[in-house]
Amino acid sequence: MSKPKLGIGMIGYQFMGKAHSHAFRDLDFFFPGGASPVLKAIAGRAEAAVRDAANQYGFESYETDWRKLLERDDIDVIDIVTPNYLHAEMAIAAAEAGKHVICEKPMAMTVEEAIRMRDAVKKNGVTGLLCHNYRFAPAVQYAKQLIASGRLGRIYHIRAQYLQDWIMDPNFPLVWRLRKEVTGSGALGDIGAHILDLARFLVGEITELTATMETFIKTRPLGEMSGGLEARVDGSQTGTVDVDDATAILAHFDNGALGVFEATRFAGGNRNGNRFEINGERGSIRWDLENMNLLHVYLEDDEAGLQGFRTINCTETVHPFADRYWPAGHIIGYEHTFMNLFASYFESIVEGKPFQPDFDEGVRNERVLEAVETSAQKREWVAIPQE
Amino acid sequence: MSKPKLGIGMIGYQFMGKAHSHAFRDLDFFFPGGASPVLKAIAGRAEAAVRDAANQYGFESYETDWRKLLERDDIDVIDIVTPNYLHAEMAIAAAEAGKHVICEKPMAMTVEEAIRMRDAVKKNGVTGLLCHNYRFAPAVQYAKQLIASGRLGRIYHIRAQYLQDWIMDPNFPLVWRLRKEVTGSGALGDIGAHILDLARFLVGEITELTATMETFIKTRPLGEMSGGLEARVDGSQTGTVDVDDATAILAHFDNGALGVFEATRFAGGNRNGNRFEINGERGSIRWDLENMNLLHVYLEDDEAGLQGFRTINCTETVHPFADRYWPAGHIIGYEHTFMNLFASYFESIVEGKPFQPDFDEGVRNERVLEAVETSAQKREWVAIPQE
Amino acid sequence: MSKPKLGIGMIGYQFMGKAHSHAFRDLDFFFPGGASPVLKAIAGRAEAAVRDAANQYGFESYETDWRKLLERDDIDVIDIVTPNYLHAEMAIAAAEAGKHVICEKPMAMTVEEAIRMRDAVKKNGVTGLLCHNYRFAPAVQYAKQLIASGRLGRIYHIRAQYLQDWIMDPNFPLVWRLRKEVTGSGALGDIGAHILDLARFLVGEITELTATMETFIKTRPLGEMSGGLEARVDGSQTGTVDVDDATAILAHFDNGALGVFEATRFAGGNRNGNRFEINGERGSIRWDLENMNLLHVYLEDDEAGLQGFRTINCTETVHPFADRYWPAGHIIGYEHTFMNLFASYFESIVEGKPFQPDFDEGVRNERVLEAVETSAQKREWVAIPQE
Amino acid sequence: MSKPKLGIGMIGYQFMGKAHSHAFRDLDFFFPGGASPVLKAIAGRAEAAVRDAANQYGFESYETDWRKLLERDDIDVIDIVTPNYLHAEMAIAAAEAGKHVICEKPMAMTVEEAIRMRDAVKKNGVTGLLCHNYRFAPAVQYAKQLIASGRLGRIYHIRAQYLQDWIMDPNFPLVWRLRKEVTGSGALGDIGAHILDLARFLVGEITELTATMETFIKTRPLGEMSGGLEARVDGSQTGTVDVDDATAILAHFDNGALGVFEATRFAGGNRNGNRFEINGERGSIRWDLENMNLLHVYLEDDEAGLQGFRTINCTETVHPFADRYWPAGHIIGYEHTFMNLFASYFESIVEGKPFQPDFDEGVRNERVLEAVETSAQKREWVAIPQE
Repeated sequence: MSKPKLGIGMIGYQFMGKAHSHAFRDLDFFFPGGASPVLKAIAGRAEAAVRDAANQYGFESYETDWRKLLERDDIDVIDIVTPNYLHAEMAIAAAEAGKHVICEKPMAMTVEEAIRMRDAVKKNGVTGLLCHNYRFAPAVQYAKQLIASGRLGRIYHIRAQYLQDWIMDPNFPLVWRLRKEVTGSGALGDIGAHILDLARFLVGEITELTATMETFIKTRPLGEMSGGLEARVDGSQTGTVDVDDATAILAHFDNGALGVFEATRFAGGNRNGNRFEINGERGSIRWDLENMNLLHVYLEDDEAGLQGFRTINCTETVHPFADRYWPAGHIIGYEHTFMNLFASYFESIVEGKPFQPDFDEGVRNERVLEAVETSAQKREWVAIPQE
Repeated sequence: MSKPKLGIGMIGYQFMGKAHSHAFRDLDFFFPGGASPVLKAIAGRAEAAVRDAANQYGFESYETDWRKLLERDDIDVIDIVTPNYLHAEMAIAAAEAGKHVICEKPMAMTVEEAIRMRDAVKKNGVTGLLCHNYRFAPAVQYAKQLIASGRLGRIYHIRAQYLQDWIMDPNFPLVWRLRKEVTGSGALGDIGAHILDLARFLVGEITELTATMETFIKTRPLGEMSGGLEARVDGSQTGTVDVDDATAILAHFDNGALGVFEATRFAGGNRNGNRFEINGERGSIRWDLENMNLLHVYLEDDEAGLQGFRTINCTETVHPFADRYWPAGHIIGYEHTFMNLFASYFESIVEGKPFQPDFDEGVRNERVLEAVETSAQKREWVAIPQE
Repeated sequence: MSKPKLGIGMIGYQFMGKAHSHAFRDLDFFFPGGASPVLKAIAGRAEAAVRDAANQYGFESYETDWRKLLERDDIDVIDIVTPNYLHAEMAIAAAEAGKHVICEKPMAMTVEEAIRMRDAVKKNGVTGLLCHNYRFAPAVQYAKQLIASGRLGRIYHIRAQYLQDWIMDPNFPLVWRLRKEVTGSGALGDIGAHILDLARFLVGEITELTATMETFIKTRPLGEMSGGLEARVDGSQTGTVDVDDATAILAHFDNGALGVFEATRFAGGNRNGNRFEINGERGSIRWDLENMNLLHVYLEDDEAGLQGFRTINCTETVHPFADRYWPAGHIIGYEHTFMNLFASYFESIVEGKPFQPDFDEGVRNERVLEAVETSAQKREWVAIPQE
Repeated sequence: MSKPKLGIGMIGYQFMGKAHSHAFRDLDFFFPGGASPVLKAIAGRAEAAVRDAANQYGFESYETDWRKLLERDDIDVIDIVTPNYLHAEMAIAAAEAGKHVICEKPMAMTVEEAIRMRDAVKKNGVTGLLCHNYRFAPAVQYAKQLIASGRLGRIYHIRAQYLQDWIMDPNFPLVWRLRKEVTGSGALGDIGAHILDLARFLVGEITELTATMETFIKTRPLGEMSGGLEARVDGSQTGTVDVDDATAILAHFDNGALGVFEATRFAGGNRNGNRFEINGERGSIRWDLENMNLLHVYLEDDEAGLQGFRTINCTETVHPFADRYWPAGHIIGYEHTFMNLFASYFESIVEGKPFQPDFDEGVRNERVLEAVETSAQKREWVAIPQE
């Protein structure tokens, strides 16, 4: 009996291209009973670069026109890892070509785009995946189990931060992630999107929020890292940063919980500090991506005197996905969030079952992101429509 | 040569009465060169209780009418550790009687009260102390030095939480700290006031904010802990919680920094988690009251490869106040924040120098607290008048 | 009804003199129902220094001849905080004068001395206290309860280190703590004694051990800190360090547990790192003096998936001594180990009950310390006589 | 230009077989410029199991007789991941067949075996690799750089523990790792070998040691996990554990450093606690495998007041191997230690350069391990011959 195979066509090849490709390659090894992704083709405009990527990542072929991928019968899934402004066009085209669609986050530039993307996959009977990989860290999956099973009781609080520091140097150039036309927003869409998605995954729907967005350094040099988007790349010229360096949010959830969120690229010493604490009536949990195997759990029912946060290394067979990898205490890293995500997604495709986070989830996320921007502009609380 | 003595008259005798009294008693020991507080009298309405307190705390006498303290010539300083609604009346009377005034936080029920208190001490030429003791943790004092000396550069962020969990049980009774008429506000004034004061101390003035306040458990039993304020104390009856269980705030500072604050009594597992992180262009710091001797410091100028938060035990002779106590690594506790505070305050009185946090600072704090309540009620950003 | 009073006569006035005096002064405050120590007199050879100490510490009088203390009827307890070579003579004389005796650790220079001290207190019907204060950290007391109640089951392991770094600079002078004739041993007696005592307190009796002792810097300048013991104090001359900078030990316990111990003053960055981990068949505990309020507890019976070390802040009313101080999460510091110790000791005196660690415990400790030195010299395993 | 390829033949297929295979598969992806391992064949006695392993791990073929691998021209490297008693025979045969040899640790059952293995690779001009993968954790490599560059100065101390807890249940069966004839030793060879190797790698050669070995549970049930080595496998019978559950060691190094080591499988709550602290005259470092990306570094030269251990996430481009993987703060896991190790080893083969840890290192390690067993048996210090 041969296992099912899924031909993959990837559009884009930078950081996320590397992370996705690596995860696809490792799936047969760690999930031998699941569907087998076959790296059919990768597309990018710059031929030399995309050829190199195809070689390193292990794709069988490459294309310089991404639409060629849609025409190929050997490709079942289109994986979009391009800058955000391209997501909608590509995802809709892929869905209309009958391909399943993996889309990096944030899903789209607007809620309207996201809705069109969602409608396209629904209409064409394909499955969309919005790539919120951190949901699939074993410790986060385990947190979800604890909450869903009522172990924490009613949730009162979530406070989450995604703290980075990679653009604090004023001489750091105006890369595409700092250009609104390409990326939509700054810290909000890049990292804030992750903590808001985790909040929705773990706590529930956000009903209203108020937010503020800051741009601490408003002018930056145009540099070679700025991509091909600007005409003038001589290093002496500067451009305007038109996205947020930092975003902070207060939010109410449908179940009465209170959320406090902060995403920033100006938190020196925090290389990748994606962390949250959730407090419920029967317990609390803490997590931090930089020590992603650990979940800190406090249980109100613990005996008096012995109450305290437990530091749990979620690498035991009882923890989600842990049996796929190594014995207890042998930690896994960032890349495994993608493996767990894709293995689950492919399983849902093969078995014809629904999957989350899909494009419906993406639309809900996009409503939150758009509400943040609206609130920051109007300086008022904004309600989020619930479908 | 005998050292200067200051007669102390205390009004109130509960938790803060104990903490203040203890600090006064220890001052001669740890600050032998400074002024010597003499515990002259303590006042409270319940004679048996105040007599016991006098005995345990070491006061020479007690009174059941606090105004008697004002008449005594041997008392130089009135220390007010009563519930908040009494602060203004007592502080103004004390100032008018020519006494220096120590006042527990939050200073008052309203900005108007705080202004009257401030004006009273100014008019009468006495020194007011608003008792924000956490400013005087050695690690916090050291943090202040680092920031003031420019070591962190321009400040971008402060995120601070004061997390407690002592009223999470729905059967916890309606104590005075949960009654608006007595306490003014709940988590906001009790613990939020501390982190907002620390933010002002370390970062600068808050110019505007938006906030939300939550009461998760709106009805509680009336119990024996509820004090003498309600008529019906039979345990079967319940009362309404009319103060906040939790408050969350977004704030802008005059120097452009962004603040995110949260104070809650519903964060299970956090017994007394008063913590902050501040990010500047050249470094970051983190502090947590539950490990109050430690300051975590990140310096952007550190050599590449060796960059990371340093865990500094602020018990070395170079750290503020540390030479008063024990050798390096022998930690001090909560009570020392009061000793450092009072020693500094008494020194300022003896030397006739200004002191902070005084009642001017108290007024500024009160403006922030009132703006939080206004913002939460009106659901909008509120500007804070700068004097 | 007046509470019992105990007149205290202290011999010595340096670091330990300060720590003991402070604890005595605070007892009435935190242990109002217990015996009340009265600081009657302090003795030391240098009149100016001992007079200053009397003033700062709050003693009613001072003596330059310690034997005068023994003659005073108003003194019930002699507290010996002198260098180690003086302990035996003073303790025996005090016992023979009918005084209770507090003795700083290590108890004596030899087992023979310790036995004479023990016999002296027994013969004279007074109570000896060997001042191992760390037994009385609340977290350590709680650890003892857990072990004694069988919560950890059979004990397999203890590994303990006492790591300091205050003499790493080769120019640090030859102080009395580095001179064998005065101090007996170096890291072993000063800090190793603490972890060995904790091990005996928590785990049981050591039956045999093998050890090694190192002196990394064998010659040091004679400096003004060297005390009055050497003839030549001109700063240009050097002396030989004849005690250990570091000691390491393997040990077997009577209950089959395996102990690994290390005491060193050459562990850079460890200001006062007194820490242990104990592993039993049903659970494990970890403690570190630099965060002395915390006890980390692992319980084998915890539910699968939720197993992990709990970080417990031992400041809740259910924890030993915690109800004497502040609310949960308001930490206490180093000095409270002495308060808890002395309060318990005085209670035992007043009630005529046995107390530990007494001089019997001191003899047992001294046997271990002497075995370490013997083992290190002979380079072989040494059995420890069990009484 | 095609990159060099190296055909791999693996003997054995359990935990280490999985870890090695995975690393081989990922090398092309993360080290695209290096030699490319090709998984030619895997050998094992049980055909069904080895066939499954070949499928999952991605080997082109399998054999049930390992000697067949030696006859194949397409195999350049033999990778031995069998129980320890088989290492010598297989490694020597492989070397004599002209194959490079990867050997899991511990290298051999005796020093004599290890010497024959070393001589075989030397005589046949092939390169041996003793698979101490933890040397190649980025944080450990970085620690090595710091020490080698003199950044820590003269080394005074190393204390290292490898703490596990997977056999604490008395009903855990007598698996092959608990049988001396198969495994040689217990905790010593399995996990003690790692910390002793790290100590030699980071600090220097051990010249003498004294040790003790414990077996806490001496009888265990024979179970299905016990392998095919015993005749009676009915579950009701028991067998004797003839290896150590725990080993503790004191050691002196040629450079004067003092080492304290402990390896145990009875440290409840420590799933995989491989950790060390090294103290030098100018600084200290700490590492723990369970948070393997972090290195804690204390530098004596840091400014007074700002001294403390820095928590460094060794995922920045300046850290060893980090540029192969993900951006700063995106952690890697256990499996990457093997990737870094094999990539470096293959590079040395292709470039004809020496490599460490090779079989010379293996002999040196084996001398230490044998000395530990001798010392524990004779209960005396044992000198280690230096070549």
